[in-house]
Amino acid sequence: MAGAAPSEEALRRALAERQAAVDAQAEAVRSLKASGAKVGVDAAVEALKALKIEAGAAARRLQAAVGSGGGAAREEMRQAVGNTLERKLFYIPSFKIYRGVAGLYDYGPPGCAVKSNVLAFWRQHFVLEENMLEVDCPCVTPEVVLKASGHVDKFTDLMVKDEKTGTCYRADHLLKDFCKDKLEKDLTLSPETAAEFKRVLAVLDDLSREELGAKIKEYGIVAPDTKNPLSAPYPFNLMFQTSIGPTGLSVGYMRPETAQGIFVNFKDLYYYNGQKLPFAAAQIGQAFRNEISPRQGLLRVREFTLAEIEHFVDPEDKSHPKFVDVADLEFLMFPRELQLSGEPAKLTKLAEAVSKGTVNNETLGYFIGRVYLFLTRLGIDKSRLRFRQHLPNEMAHYAADCWDAEIECSYGWTECVGIADRSAYDLKAHSEKSGVPLVAHEKFSKPREVEKLVIVPSKKDLGLAFKGNQKMVVEALEAMSEKEAMDMKAALESNGETNFQVCTLGKEVVITKKMVSISMEKKLEHQRVFTPSVVEPSFGIGRIIYCLFEHSFYTRPSKSRTDEIGVPFAVTVDSATEVTIRERDSKQQVRVGIDEVASVVKELTEGQSTWTDISFKYPSHIGPQGDQE
Amino acid sequence: MAGAAPSEEALRRALAERQAAVDAQAEAVRSLKASGAKVGVDAAVEALKALKIEAGAAARRLQAAVGSGGGAAREEMRQAVGNTLERKLFYIPSFKIYRGVAGLYDYGPPGCAVKSNVLAFWRQHFVLEENMLEVDCPCVTPEVVLKASGHVDKFTDLMVKDEKTGTCYRADHLLKDFCKDKLEKDLTLSPETAAEFKRVLAVLDDLSREELGAKIKEYGIVAPDTKNPLSAPYPFNLMFQTSIGPTGLSVGYMRPETAQGIFVNFKDLYYYNGQKLPFAAAQIGQAFRNEISPRQGLLRVREFTLAEIEHFVDPEDKSHPKFVDVADLEFLMFPRELQLSGEPAKLTKLAEAVSKGTVNNETLGYFIGRVYLFLTRLGIDKSRLRFRQHLPNEMAHYAADCWDAEIECSYGWTECVGIADRSAYDLKAHSEKSGVPLVAHEKFSKPREVEKLVIVPSKKDLGLAFKGNQKMVVEALEAMSEKEAMDMKAALESNGETNFQVCTLGKEVVITKKMVSISMEKKLEHQRVFTPSVVEPSFGIGRIIYCLFEHSFYTRPSKSRTDEIGVPFAVTVDSATEVTIRERDSKQQVRVGIDEVASVVKELTEGQSTWTDISFKYPSHIGPQGDQE
Repeated sequence: MAGAAPSEEALRRALAERQAAVDAQAEAVRSLKASGAKVGVDAAVEALKALKIEAGAAARRLQAAVGSGGGAAREEMRQAVGNTLERKLFYIPSFKIYRGVAGLYDYGPPGCAVKSNVLAFWRQHFVLEENMLEVDCPCVTPEVVLKASGHVDKFTDLMVKDEKTGTCYRADHLLKDFCKDKLEKDLTLSPETAAEFKRVLAVLDDLSREELGAKIKEYGIVAPDTKNPLSAPYPFNLMFQTSIGPTGLSVGYMRPETAQGIFVNFKDLYYYNGQKLPFAAAQIGQAFRNEISPRQGLLRVREFTLAEIEHFVDPEDKSHPKFVDVADLEFLMFPRELQLSGEPAKLTKLAEAVSKGTVNNETLGYFIGRVYLFLTRLGIDKSRLRFRQHLPNEMAHYAADCWDAEIECSYGWTECVGIADRSAYDLKAHSEKSGVPLVAHEKFSKPREVEKLVIVPSKKDLGLAFKGNQKMVVEALEAMSEKEAMDMKAALESNGETNFQVCTLGKEVVITKKMVSISMEKKLEHQRVFTPSVVEPSFGIGRIIYCLFEHSFYTRPSKSRTDEIGVPFAVTVDSATEVTIRERDSKQQVRVGIDEVASVVKELTEGQSTWTDISFKYPSHIGPQGDQE
Repeated sequence: MAGAAPSEEALRRALAERQAAVDAQAEAVRSLKASGAKVGVDAAVEALKALKIEAGAAARRLQAAVGSGGGAAREEMRQAVGNTLERKLFYIPSFKIYRGVAGLYDYGPPGCAVKSNVLAFWRQHFVLEENMLEVDCPCVTPEVVLKASGHVDKFTDLMVKDEKTGTCYRADHLLKDFCKDKLEKDLTLSPETAAEFKRVLAVLDDLSREELGAKIKEYGIVAPDTKNPLSAPYPFNLMFQTSIGPTGLSVGYMRPETAQGIFVNFKDLYYYNGQKLPFAAAQIGQAFRNEISPRQGLLRVREFTLAEIEHFVDPEDKSHPKFVDVADLEFLMFPRELQLSGEPAKLTKLAEAVSKGTVNNETLGYFIGRVYLFLTRLGIDKSRLRFRQHLPNEMAHYAADCWDAEIECSYGWTECVGIADRSAYDLKAHSEKSGVPLVAHEKFSKPREVEKLVIVPSKKDLGLAFKGNQKMVVEALEAMSEKEAMDMKAALESNGETNFQVCTLGKEVVITKKMVSISMEKKLEHQRVFTPSVVEPSFGIGRIIYCLFEHSFYTRPSKSRTDEIGVPFAVTVDSATEVTIRERDSKQQVRVGIDEVASVVKELTEGQSTWTDISFKYPSHIGPQGDQE
């Protein structure tokens, strides 16, 4: 683009050229001095100085471009917020008197109050306003459920061990840290090496166990604390395992998400809903992930509150009757193509994103809109909220589309809500494992006539012809597609026999007319039976609350105790008849009769009056505590 | 007591006597017939018949006295409630499509709504109205915390195994079932054997592992399902065990109660409260108990929601400023002496129970009163609610007093809330294990002069005299009570030496004057440092909800769908301008304008109007759905 800032690659190349010039000139100066020449030395030294200044400037330009982007300011913000939150017991590191456990935090009294309000608002905004069916399932989950969902086999992170101390690290985190650190701090990287590190970062989630191990070896990455060599990566399942009942034979896990509790109840919930689609079920509860080495304080924890919605919908009709209510919302969207072209997120109207197909369907779009309303009404700053579409490599293979609500905080852009169209994957997996069909029925108002392929092998004739191979031939005949079957029918009718490839026998056999009857028959169907798709908005409540704290956090040069925990109005009793009410942000005070104070505070907190109304209506008060606190 | 019903023992004795008379007469009849006598046989047979009738009546009287007391009616009630609750998805057996897991249940949509309301009311009634400090701690708990609390070593049930199939049973349950079954169904038990079974039931909780094993052997109790022999009892820890982090070295458990999370935070909470006592902290959350073989449906489950309060109070002042608010409450109390004397629970005024010392202190009494208000305001029938004091053998050794709020339901009287004065046990245990003093300070307004015993052993002289035993002697000297020390001082002053028993050496040693200096010194103390006592009301939310369902449950001969899930008012839209509102219990209907219906329903549900008001104000409607539904 004309006028755009030079790319990082150009800056690296510029720095490398200038550094080469410095080196060459320095060599020239040394040669001149060594040769004993008098003439030209001063000029050469001056030229070297000038080149060094140029190289320095190039290094600073590069540093500015690759630096972690206000890293110091972010770190300062994080410290200030963290200190306040811990000092005022919004959070407490769990089991602190026993030195705590990484990744476990308590909510203290004000934190609990906030959490309780956030959950009440969530329940109001989603469960009640959308008539969702709320369920509350146990955390202890038998293995069979999580085997069906894929968690037992696939819910793993790759881990490496310090070969001497046994300390464990997430393999991808070490590789990520190494690459980021090099890119941010090593200005001498060649543009080619920088590009290689960037490529590694981009495909980090896609690297196989072997590829990750090879990279760690290639880059010589060692244990961060001890510099000891590391083991090869191996998978570690993130579920907390336990045993249900006294025999020790029944493996259980602490659920890694609440969703499975909803899926296994689909059949009951569908009947409860009068066998109508779409409907949504919701669940709020604890989830558990035994993180290998939790970092990022309150954002990556081993136990957390999830609020999840599973909206079941006919895969052939993903329209949503209330989409019109959110269609006009406009907010930052960050679809795949913007991410891949390196462009930033863009203000987009939701209706446009859906109509253009950027968002896969109306139902998914509707929930994106509702999540936007939930977060911004809660107090999240809309300029620091974006909806980012998953890149193809991030999505599960069965997902139709997936968007994360990301909130910017001092840890960077942070995934707080995932909104995925998971298609029919989960219900199908549990149907298969349990043998209980988790399906919906569409009753036709009048029966529909459909043509169905009917293949009837004659087992007697096939048995005589193929003996022990009869079963394989029968199965192959029954598995024919409509086209194959109709071709065979035609061949049999004209020739009386035909060759037929039986894969399981690895050879062709001859099929004669009497061995099989093939026909298209008309049938009346009264209903359509199908597995619903599910659209799943999944909320990390702790992350949302943490971001809310950061977005609500500000400090004044001079503070008082109550201001710090956010109390907006403080009442001081001055006399038997009058009190002063002080507003936190303006520090203004008004004088109010004691019989009126309760109703005034109620009006203010419920939003029926503003502070301006009140300060207009009541005499202002300038007291000794005006600015002291 | 004059006029009282005959005791069970008298009934057993009467039956035994009549049965003996029947046997004797039967023998006489046989002899007569054998002798070929003709005379007197008919009379003897008539007499036998009469004796049999008498014995039958005695058996029925005994049966009535020992029978399970309306067992059939209770079973019927349980079935009716259970069927409705499961059919309407108040509860769902968890993971039902995989045949479920014993002791795990989901709340379905209406169950969730009730639970959410119960918890909101609990938070309002306790946390908000009493200014409690709410915390929210993780379920995953490191071993050290539960080692300190005693759960790792002592939170066990005794288990026996079917020696052939390996099926596990709770040993005390089998013994209890055996004794109850015999007492209720075996009318031929001698009064002595019946008394023995009753004694076993009374001391069941006190039986040691060996005693329990001996009884099971003595009675020949076998596995209930297979009749196979049983193993000897052995302890099984009821906590779900897991491993925190990837190394497998850090044992953790799913918390068996929420209380420990509060205790370990005592220091922070005390400072947060301005270092003032008393104060209470509260927590609502999941708790986990890996029951050996859960029975009793929804009452004994492996995962459940607890709501717990820890009220920290100066052990020297357990008065409560708000006790006066609950002092006049009168309800069923069942103190120790009534239980031991076999009398029933008695309506008692709370003030009286506290002033007589039946309830140990005002703070405990205050919480008993608040729990009573909570449960009855929630909808528990006060005639089926009693507060039962723990018998001495039920209480932990450190507890000062303990009362259970028991609610009667189809499972019998069911413990739903425990209210215990746990003294300083928990805080002391965590202080000791963590090394962090969990104490409170009482600052004196002016320093107080106190006399303190000072014992200074001379290690040099003791070392010369006792060499390797010096340490034991020093510790014994330092551990002397004030009286022992002053006696020794007097002896040393008069004799220059004295004999001294050192327990850890198992012998007496001679202590001379120069080996130890003993004095009483005056010191100024500025504060008193002490470990607070804790009063703990602990609520089993699931049990309360279940009892609430039973107490609210009734059926009409003819029912409609919404009635069954408790919807009190149904609105039918009749025209564009008018609707009918139908009241569930009376089935009456009134006709209301469409613009008024919302406010009428609001008034009704918020209690501003009664149905009588409304049916007086609006025209009644007798429609086709009058009695159909």
